[in-house]
Amino acid sequence: MEFNKLKNIAILGSTGSIGTQALDVIRANPQLFKAEVLTAQSNADLLIAQALEFGPEVVVIVDEHKYQQVKEALSNTPIKVKSGEEALTEVVVLPQLDMVLTAVVGFCGLRPTISAIKARKTIALANKETLVVAGDIVTQLAKENGVDILPVDSEHSAIFQCLVGEKLCEIEKIYLTASGGPFRGKNIDFLKTVTHHQALKHPNWSMGAKITIDSASLMNKGLEVIEAKWLFNLNVDQIDVIVHPQSIVHSLVQFNDGSIKAQMGLPDMKLPIQYALTYPSRVNTDFKRFNFLDYPSLTFEPADMNTFRNLAYAFDALQKGGNMACIINAANEVVVAEFLKERIGFLQMSDIIESCMLNVDFVEKPILEDYFQTDRETRAYALDLITNI
Amino acid sequence: MEFNKLKNIAILGSTGSIGTQALDVIRANPQLFKAEVLTAQSNADLLIAQALEFGPEVVVIVDEHKYQQVKEALSNTPIKVKSGEEALTEVVVLPQLDMVLTAVVGFCGLRPTISAIKARKTIALANKETLVVAGDIVTQLAKENGVDILPVDSEHSAIFQCLVGEKLCEIEKIYLTASGGPFRGKNIDFLKTVTHHQALKHPNWSMGAKITIDSASLMNKGLEVIEAKWLFNLNVDQIDVIVHPQSIVHSLVQFNDGSIKAQMGLPDMKLPIQYALTYPSRVNTDFKRFNFLDYPSLTFEPADMNTFRNLAYAFDALQKGGNMACIINAANEVVVAEFLKERIGFLQMSDIIESCMLNVDFVEKPILEDYFQTDRETRAYALDLITNI
Repeated sequence: MEFNKLKNIAILGSTGSIGTQALDVIRANPQLFKAEVLTAQSNADLLIAQALEFGPEVVVIVDEHKYQQVKEALSNTPIKVKSGEEALTEVVVLPQLDMVLTAVVGFCGLRPTISAIKARKTIALANKETLVVAGDIVTQLAKENGVDILPVDSEHSAIFQCLVGEKLCEIEKIYLTASGGPFRGKNIDFLKTVTHHQALKHPNWSMGAKITIDSASLMNKGLEVIEAKWLFNLNVDQIDVIVHPQSIVHSLVQFNDGSIKAQMGLPDMKLPIQYALTYPSRVNTDFKRFNFLDYPSLTFEPADMNTFRNLAYAFDALQKGGNMACIINAANEVVVAEFLKERIGFLQMSDIIESCMLNVDFVEKPILEDYFQTDRETRAYALDLITNI
Repeated sequence: MEFNKLKNIAILGSTGSIGTQALDVIRANPQLFKAEVLTAQSNADLLIAQALEFGPEVVVIVDEHKYQQVKEALSNTPIKVKSGEEALTEVVVLPQLDMVLTAVVGFCGLRPTISAIKARKTIALANKETLVVAGDIVTQLAKENGVDILPVDSEHSAIFQCLVGEKLCEIEKIYLTASGGPFRGKNIDFLKTVTHHQALKHPNWSMGAKITIDSASLMNKGLEVIEAKWLFNLNVDQIDVIVHPQSIVHSLVQFNDGSIKAQMGLPDMKLPIQYALTYPSRVNTDFKRFNFLDYPSLTFEPADMNTFRNLAYAFDALQKGGNMACIINAANEVVVAEFLKERIGFLQMSDIIESCMLNVDFVEKPILEDYFQTDRETRAYALDLITNI
């Protein structure tokens, strides 16, 4: 890989699962990358440690209660410290930045991503909600500004890697693979009683709590279906989900001649993270290599959308269009948080999402502010439902 | 796919398995392709029928005994008729040709391929022996003439498709998949007694007799290993063979970051043939599509190189270099022909190949004429061995 200079990177959400692994990649390749911006929601201790190690220009601690702690810890350094949600949209426009890795979780990734696109920064997108909620607006904006959106999700990175050198217009369909999560093969009676402890035990991937619950409910795959639609300019009937319990084949593309390309490897998020950072080149790693002898059989089965309704809802939302995916996403953020607090059961998550889809105001052609309105309205509606259960 | 004009194609070996399927592709895409040259070894009837259908500029019937028959049959057409081995090297330089598909079987593909490269025709290479025998000279010549060699073999097409948009220098290794052939899992005692009828029953692919026997003995995979070395500029330790009985994953590339890309599909040679013809674009087909529900499990196992020694010999030949691959290829062409005539047994094929490797003169840095000499010498030696069995 040849660079004329270091690639300067902002990591939004540097203390999370993706953020820390991105810093592992940067640590291993100091000749290629410089972490210039680090941001955290509330994990001040880790943010301080990261700042002292990587020496960014600026850090953001979103939680204003933690500002003083971070400020004081970095007082003997030239590192600037900011706080508050709005600081995220400010730091991504710093002139020296080449790339913004959006690794925050949830709807809150939308504004800073838009800000970064307008500043013509390459986006390494780990915050799938950005495209789920406002894919039309975000992809149009990226196009207008000549900005690449490079996927970090393992499935979308797989598709993206399969598409290098190919033409988007020659895609016939894509297959997003799904591990099936910890409850693959279980029935509705079983799911009625599962706890968040069970749901947090993902068989193949170690990830944050929100995405792990989403994996157990297949909502993660649903959000990925919507994300894929926008990333690769597909129609809903060009997207299929196939359950692949070993999580070795990360996704596949079928072209108009019938040829299929797949991207594979051990389940290790560092690989797609690094690929987004080094694209269009690849860089040597010491990551453990896949060995066929450890995986003599790769298996595939249909997704059970009757039991795991969230996935069906995501396809419905894509079909419906408008603000429906925004409704699903907001409802899901609420129900996952409430499920983690043991206030609702596993299946109630789907019930509440469905109710939001039926009852929150549908907007056929939303502008950006409509999405913020829909997000607020859906959260309020979902919380109200939960309070009255 | 956009063309300024029809792509004019010469098909060497138009009456064989690859040749007839290439004509299927051309028949389905008359707006893209024109068959300008058709050649056959001895199947005059089919060559005549093809000529009448496709109206090429010239046909070649190599077998001079069949010349009169073809000439007379086409006497009312403007189609020129030639005969003899040397005509192949003449017709591939016709100025209107854009591409030469070399679908003849065996060493006899070498001279016309070199002739076509010197005339700067794009090569669609189905004759793997060209690279097996003289890969160093042929690839160097292609480089000097700025000629693309596009693989038609399903495995090499798979690798080639995985490499589109990637850098050859970022390949860590490749996996060539092998069905394992009809005798997968069998032991040496079983192989002692197998007949050519058994060996001709390939589980997944319908191909010509020579390549089907080569598949049963794993020599086909050995030749592919050598071909891959030259096509993709690899070292021998960058090439691995993995047995995959379903023949769905056609081969894989592992990159220096650990990422693996695979190309997949139903076993249908028309797909890689068409890809070579349409590259760098893809064109819609009505070929049957792969369906995961028909293949819920894709399995992989190591190749048994103790039982199927030919594959080990191919790796040995690559390690040894020089004219060793030429020796293997010539010996193999003789033994397969003799096995098909029931003059030697299945395991004797490997014995004779081994004996040729040990006894035919080794040339460390062969020039082109050395290869012709080695080919003749090996054939004579192998036939002599067989006569004295």
